[in-house]
Amino acid sequence: MKDLVYLDNSATTKPCDKAIERLNFALLENWGNPSSLHTVGINAEDILISCKEICAKTISARTDEIYFTSGGTEANNIAINGAVLSRAKRGRKIVTTTIEHPSVLEAIKNFENQGFEVIYLKPQQNGKISEQDLKDAIDEKTILVSIMLVNNEIGSIQPIKAAADAIKASNSPALLHCDAVQAFGKLPIKVSLLGVDLLTFSGHKIHAPKGIGVLYKKKGVHITPLIFGGGQQENLRPGTEPVPLIAALEGAILELPNPNTQLIKATDIYNYAKEELLKTGMIKINSPKDALPYVLNISVPGWRSETLLHFLDSKGVIVSSGSACAKGAISPTLTALGLDKKSIDSALRISFSRFNTKSDIDLLVKALTDATNKLKRS
Amino acid sequence: MKDLVYLDNSATTKPCDKAIERLNFALLENWGNPSSLHTVGINAEDILISCKEICAKTISARTDEIYFTSGGTEANNIAINGAVLSRAKRGRKIVTTTIEHPSVLEAIKNFENQGFEVIYLKPQQNGKISEQDLKDAIDEKTILVSIMLVNNEIGSIQPIKAAADAIKASNSPALLHCDAVQAFGKLPIKVSLLGVDLLTFSGHKIHAPKGIGVLYKKKGVHITPLIFGGGQQENLRPGTEPVPLIAALEGAILELPNPNTQLIKATDIYNYAKEELLKTGMIKINSPKDALPYVLNISVPGWRSETLLHFLDSKGVIVSSGSACAKGAISPTLTALGLDKKSIDSALRISFSRFNTKSDIDLLVKALTDATNKLKRS
Repeated sequence: MKDLVYLDNSATTKPCDKAIERLNFALLENWGNPSSLHTVGINAEDILISCKEICAKTISARTDEIYFTSGGTEANNIAINGAVLSRAKRGRKIVTTTIEHPSVLEAIKNFENQGFEVIYLKPQQNGKISEQDLKDAIDEKTILVSIMLVNNEIGSIQPIKAAADAIKASNSPALLHCDAVQAFGKLPIKVSLLGVDLLTFSGHKIHAPKGIGVLYKKKGVHITPLIFGGGQQENLRPGTEPVPLIAALEGAILELPNPNTQLIKATDIYNYAKEELLKTGMIKINSPKDALPYVLNISVPGWRSETLLHFLDSKGVIVSSGSACAKGAISPTLTALGLDKKSIDSALRISFSRFNTKSDIDLLVKALTDATNKLKRS
Repeated sequence: MKDLVYLDNSATTKPCDKAIERLNFALLENWGNPSSLHTVGINAEDILISCKEICAKTISARTDEIYFTSGGTEANNIAINGAVLSRAKRGRKIVTTTIEHPSVLEAIKNFENQGFEVIYLKPQQNGKISEQDLKDAIDEKTILVSIMLVNNEIGSIQPIKAAADAIKASNSPALLHCDAVQAFGKLPIKVSLLGVDLLTFSGHKIHAPKGIGVLYKKKGVHITPLIFGGGQQENLRPGTEPVPLIAALEGAILELPNPNTQLIKATDIYNYAKEELLKTGMIKINSPKDALPYVLNISVPGWRSETLLHFLDSKGVIVSSGSACAKGAISPTLTALGLDKKSIDSALRISFSRFNTKSDIDLLVKALTDATNKLKRS
């Protein structure tokens, strides 16, 4: 996999050196059960504490507000299930958006099927939920508001703070959940500034291995558990903690560059990508102008996404035809943006990590141009 | 951790070489998202398929009956929640035992709190649930029977097949769930012979890393999901699959010796341990005579478990004062067996892996004798 141009970093990322190093240390030297009372267990517990501290620091939270899960999907499910069940007596209304990740949308649909009222806010043309829509939707019957910080398909940044303000202004008992899977490590995150009660992120989007996620739960907020067991993690998420993955997550977070500094570099590459792709005359850009400069959604009119994806793949350039989490399904986000069917059918998602370079863009553009030439010939 | 005598293998095990090797291969060379449509994703998907085949083969199941979870706790919760919710219209009764793992007991208590009737069967003096009790408890209103194959504290083997027979005989709509976490890899398991609908096991008890478990669900049996998301694993357990851990699980299973051959070796060491420990005149044995020869529960009258545990720990001998999953809590299994408080307070669990030797036993016995001498002196 060495010579690949990997531009599908919103689907998953390559584990970084420090994550792998820490993971192997845990596997070889510190593999105890952190619930055990002996030295082997206590040493393993140290890894949990240390990683919680790093997670907390990164989002300006407290160590006792951090819970480990098996990934973003489980973290989102714990947050949503927990918020709804714990507040069901105070209201039956949930506010979310049409462009959430399936782990949010499907978890909420499960409650809609049980009779809860759900308001699905649609984004505006710029891919953002309007602040006025949030104000209009949230009321004193609303028990959960769930909005992602960065959309996984087009990179639009959502107004989380406005949702928090709307909750306050309407005297709503709602908990605010933010799926920050695509934002964590890329945008500076401060939970108090966002005003969230629950925030979730995943390790494998930031160069940790798959299988580890994090739930931030604001101190004093009570939510009902989804999983029951032996009392680990204050009974909110029992089960033996995956210590090696937690060690790897710590390694990955320690290696994260300062998000502000990195944003400047990312913007440079992102703008270069937009310019070079537009120069081909083949594409139009679906991502909004102020998208997070890590997710670039384009359409290549006249082509089917999958044909292009496989052609690029054969040239060693890896992009996505949409979210990996909705294999083959029609993009809900692009549909919500009001794109015509042809644009949706020809959409490609190019998603960056801090390891991508301008020469990766050159190779992408070259492969895309090759595809057109081949099309002309065929 | 090299010179430790590690005798707490029911809590967790040291990852084996093949598990670590496979995991590193996946991290370095095959780290894609298995839902991605490109080569990087397809290669990662191969790991899932290959591990599912190995898991299926090991329990004589079909590949499409295997689902990956984040561990035993989540697997048990998916099985129990799914069985109860999918059958709630056919009855409101659950049958289980008082000696299940907390992830089973607490998941069932959650339904008891919602108004379901739960029958908790108590073991007999030999640590086993009686077949007659099963027959008496299971009826046409029972929707779930959940019994572990091997108890985690004393090693008693439970009559799963008798539960299956009782379900059939009583014309019950019940699904049969078996928590096989302590049995998998140690006892030969054939799902059709056990007669189970759902069976669960965990990687980290068989020298794979923590963070990976398996749910077997019999083909044709439908259960309601606990977690919702992007459609992975037929929607029964969505979320990006933890490919590196799945690769490691495959490695660990491939390295498992034939359980029958290994049982002979394990019995030899187990009997040696019982003899040598009894020779000290310090202990009595709590495990039943026909326990699985990997879990040996003893009491050391006159001592508190934790005092002994820490003394042994200081000598490099690692045992448990009970289940690691119930840190500090009074053993429900020993209580259910009717042991007096002094025996429970002085209980130690010695649990073996295939890597333990008779010389480990000698060191345990020596350390235990040292403890007595110290007591006498103090």
